[in-house]
Amino acid sequence: MAIVLGPNQYGKAETRVVRIYRDTQRHEIRDLNVSTALRGDFAAAHLTGDQAKVLPTDSQKNTCFAFAKSAGVGEIEDYALALARHFVDDIASVSRARVDVDEHRWERVTVAGAEHPHTFVRAGHEMRSASVTIDSERAVNATWVIAGIRDLVLLKSTGSEFGGFLKDSYTTLAPTTDRVLATSLTVRWRYAGTQVAWGNAFGQVRQILLERFASVHSLALQQTLWEMGSAVLAARDDVAEIRLSAPNKHHFLADLTPFGLDNPGEVFHAADRPYGLIQCAAQRDDAPAAGPAWDQDF
Amino acid sequence: MAIVLGPNQYGKAETRVVRIYRDTQRHEIRDLNVSTALRGDFAAAHLTGDQAKVLPTDSQKNTCFAFAKSAGVGEIEDYALALARHFVDDIASVSRARVDVDEHRWERVTVAGAEHPHTFVRAGHEMRSASVTIDSERAVNATWVIAGIRDLVLLKSTGSEFGGFLKDSYTTLAPTTDRVLATSLTVRWRYAGTQVAWGNAFGQVRQILLERFASVHSLALQQTLWEMGSAVLAARDDVAEIRLSAPNKHHFLADLTPFGLDNPGEVFHAADRPYGLIQCAAQRDDAPAAGPAWDQDF
Amino acid sequence: MAIVLGPNQYGKAETRVVRIYRDTQRHEIRDLNVSTALRGDFAAAHLTGDQAKVLPTDSQKNTCFAFAKSAGVGEIEDYALALARHFVDDIASVSRARVDVDEHRWERVTVAGAEHPHTFVRAGHEMRSASVTIDSERAVNATWVIAGIRDLVLLKSTGSEFGGFLKDSYTTLAPTTDRVLATSLTVRWRYAGTQVAWGNAFGQVRQILLERFASVHSLALQQTLWEMGSAVLAARDDVAEIRLSAPNKHHFLADLTPFGLDNPGEVFHAADRPYGLIQCAAQRDDAPAAGPAWDQDF
Amino acid sequence: MAIVLGPNQYGKAETRVVRIYRDTQRHEIRDLNVSTALRGDFAAAHLTGDQAKVLPTDSQKNTCFAFAKSAGVGEIEDYALALARHFVDDIASVSRARVDVDEHRWERVTVAGAEHPHTFVRAGHEMRSASVTIDSERAVNATWVIAGIRDLVLLKSTGSEFGGFLKDSYTTLAPTTDRVLATSLTVRWRYAGTQVAWGNAFGQVRQILLERFASVHSLALQQTLWEMGSAVLAARDDVAEIRLSAPNKHHFLADLTPFGLDNPGEVFHAADRPYGLIQCAAQRDDAPAAGPAWDQDF
Repeated sequence: MAIVLGPNQYGKAETRVVRIYRDTQRHEIRDLNVSTALRGDFAAAHLTGDQAKVLPTDSQKNTCFAFAKSAGVGEIEDYALALARHFVDDIASVSRARVDVDEHRWERVTVAGAEHPHTFVRAGHEMRSASVTIDSERAVNATWVIAGIRDLVLLKSTGSEFGGFLKDSYTTLAPTTDRVLATSLTVRWRYAGTQVAWGNAFGQVRQILLERFASVHSLALQQTLWEMGSAVLAARDDVAEIRLSAPNKHHFLADLTPFGLDNPGEVFHAADRPYGLIQCAAQRDDAPAAGPAWDQDF
Repeated sequence: MAIVLGPNQYGKAETRVVRIYRDTQRHEIRDLNVSTALRGDFAAAHLTGDQAKVLPTDSQKNTCFAFAKSAGVGEIEDYALALARHFVDDIASVSRARVDVDEHRWERVTVAGAEHPHTFVRAGHEMRSASVTIDSERAVNATWVIAGIRDLVLLKSTGSEFGGFLKDSYTTLAPTTDRVLATSLTVRWRYAGTQVAWGNAFGQVRQILLERFASVHSLALQQTLWEMGSAVLAARDDVAEIRLSAPNKHHFLADLTPFGLDNPGEVFHAADRPYGLIQCAAQRDDAPAAGPAWDQDF
Repeated sequence: MAIVLGPNQYGKAETRVVRIYRDTQRHEIRDLNVSTALRGDFAAAHLTGDQAKVLPTDSQKNTCFAFAKSAGVGEIEDYALALARHFVDDIASVSRARVDVDEHRWERVTVAGAEHPHTFVRAGHEMRSASVTIDSERAVNATWVIAGIRDLVLLKSTGSEFGGFLKDSYTTLAPTTDRVLATSLTVRWRYAGTQVAWGNAFGQVRQILLERFASVHSLALQQTLWEMGSAVLAARDDVAEIRLSAPNKHHFLADLTPFGLDNPGEVFHAADRPYGLIQCAAQRDDAPAAGPAWDQDF
Repeated sequence: MAIVLGPNQYGKAETRVVRIYRDTQRHEIRDLNVSTALRGDFAAAHLTGDQAKVLPTDSQKNTCFAFAKSAGVGEIEDYALALARHFVDDIASVSRARVDVDEHRWERVTVAGAEHPHTFVRAGHEMRSASVTIDSERAVNATWVIAGIRDLVLLKSTGSEFGGFLKDSYTTLAPTTDRVLATSLTVRWRYAGTQVAWGNAFGQVRQILLERFASVHSLALQQTLWEMGSAVLAARDDVAEIRLSAPNKHHFLADLTPFGLDNPGEVFHAADRPYGLIQCAAQRDDAPAAGPAWDQDF
């Protein structure tokens, strides 16, 4: 028996990169939160403290800023790909790089009915995300791209029921044919390849998710998630897999009967904790292997 | 010398009231965070533990839910007014009531180009707020209404400079004629009366704030805030006073020279802490007295 | 009628200053979050954008770091006093300075039963705070010192009842003679002067608060707070006033009867929102005036 | 090609269970945050909305409360084991259950030098955690127990260097022989079996982690983590594997030279973002397979 070093990675997390495009008077803005994580020949760094093969996380941060200028930030998937390729190709000790990018979205302020050229207001709660993994050990730089949305808060005020469920000796819940269904979605989808019009794809997937959430008469959050996820796969051949994680943000009907008031689905208490947490994936049965694409930690 | 009871208040904080209007197939939603705070004849509750004059905070919570049905939630100012009036008028021991309401905004999901009747997506980061104070001791139910916006995140990528400032022996900052100006605004304004089209007023104030932030060439955040606030007063006679609190969310130019790259205002590091904090008020010199309107705590 | 500039202040918020004392092998650490806010002759900065009298917030930040070396961080009250005096005395345009300091506490790590000379583990949830205000317009540098504790989370599992309260038509709460009482206290007390052994005073006040919370049989949180606050005043002549703000963190008895289990005060659901919020002050009737000491905003 | 349902699970997250033991006048408290996640025969719930095999998350929540009474909360590992076994054994459609428990720690308040029997103050920032997975498909209820600590904030003010690292064209960092090393640790360790004195083991592991962090002269966080993790394995045969995740909470030396002050490791700016993130595992080479033990999501 011996004690051995197991999986390990390191990098710089949450570098806040803001890129302004100001080539014309109409500026553009990309506002990113970037994290890098490297794996490779780093046993000595752990076992003896020898850092000769360790690229400092400070250098990784510098690279994030420099690439925002030199490679630019077009779509976050492209930016993450450029960074991950650089780390795997140019740093000899690195065999696998993962780059996670979250994007804060901005909208233009409108002044007297016209979009202002350089003033922006934070748009929405939700964030667009991309996670790129490149692994030089598996193939010639095998590459995985995952795109996603976080904090997409949705609610439907009817069109949702929950009944016919299993009852055990701890079940007190009454079935309902009409409830509020609310969630804060995290959705991530893995592309089969890297030749994708990232921005268009993101917009289409987001719209499908919204439309299916709205249109499906929900018998349970599980069913709604499956309908949302499988619709994305049906619409886009280049999506190999999609994973949805949905807290069921409970809205409890306020009991107004002590006050002589009825409450036919009108007044609710929005609870914080606990919440249901429903998670599922929809996949193609011929999808390329996910490899380490989903291994955010280790 | 004696030890005496000083200012005191109590209430229920952060009741999460969701009101659905479903009289037609096209539902409406109001999503509120409601806090009540009562003052009055509560010395015995402190000094002897006698609760005979204390309306439980649980009852205050119930009232928030019941009023969402009976009085309804039209504009949050009206809802807060109804609650505050009730506490002052109907509970003998209460001499002053304060009701704070924050509203989470929702937008309709669009399906195939049409607004969905009962599905919503969380809109934006910012929240609309209202704070109503009614004090029965000062006059016949003297009433103050404050409206506001919180977490209004704004950024301009040029049109901001900072120079000509005071230099002391701890000053190392270089003046700049072109910087990113970013903030997350909290703005609150006090109305002179209670006969206001609250929703329209809110929309107009918000738009003025956005337009002035965009249009004023900024010499400092102080000047920008003053221009924003005074423009609101100039546009609306019914606003007596406006207060703005603006963190200066620093965006530091990344130094790319070690990498052979120039950086003419293109790549920035968005810092978290510390941040500047600039706060000011614009007032009418003939405004009615603010009384306890701004006394959120005690 | 004219639109005029109202109250205003500006400064640098949340500068994270860590001071290590390493004069001997046994190091000491002070870990601070420092905010400065200045008032004075700053009308031009707002009205015309003229910054000639404005000391940059960046300089204020530098001063916080420099004073941590030159003045040192003994007790946070002393450090805040030194900073506030500097801003009022040395910057001509400043007439009032407020310095807020929160201190993260650390404990030494114990190795083989002995305290380690330079390794620390974060101690506790709670933070010690100090707020110093110096106003040169009121008197010869009138000075106020407020000390405090934040996030002091306390719970007693019995010895708390709530009954005999006012019932209105929205009251459904049942009285109880035995409940869990839990809170996360924010307590701040104002000293009558500035000649105080700050650290000893803080320790004594904290201990009195804990002991009274424990020992008083609670008829309501109002009564408990009063007993805590007045006990501090009774013990220390140099405390002029104390303010307590206490969320009532509700613990609801879980209903286990459907599962054939009784629950005599044993299993609770700890709720997040809403919560009661009880706030009161205890004062000496001959206390010196508070002046602007409590004006955290403006 | 077909679109198929992939991995899925569901449960109730963050049920806040507080258990008071009051059999004697000296009460005990356990304060838990409990999450359950079930896998099994739930395809129909997704594909057709048929919930006949779905135990509601509300029932899972009820079970958490009921078991806190009937099974009790001794050590959190035992409580999680009881819950997971119940779901796998008693609910036919469940083939795998995971139960995550975080424990908030409390200390007794001391009154006049004696521990109070029923009053507690929240102890520390850090949380003890347990994650139990039972899988009925792999073996006769194959069981994995992971224990852990979260938010263990540590700092050493000397005894840490970082140098001899790889330099690329984006490297600007200077090596240092003396720096502040600070982190907020998440450590989790997997036991080889289930016959463990959980509380004693937790205490021993925590102490080893603290002592190694303190005693190892750090050449890099990688080396420190390895020394901490391997020391735990060396001390306890029943620990199969340990994983450490450590943000490098950077403390930057304040530049005081413009103010005529030297700064020999005394005054630092504690930065929030970005931060290094160093993660590694130490394992026994003959450890039993981890199976799904680490699959928190899916």
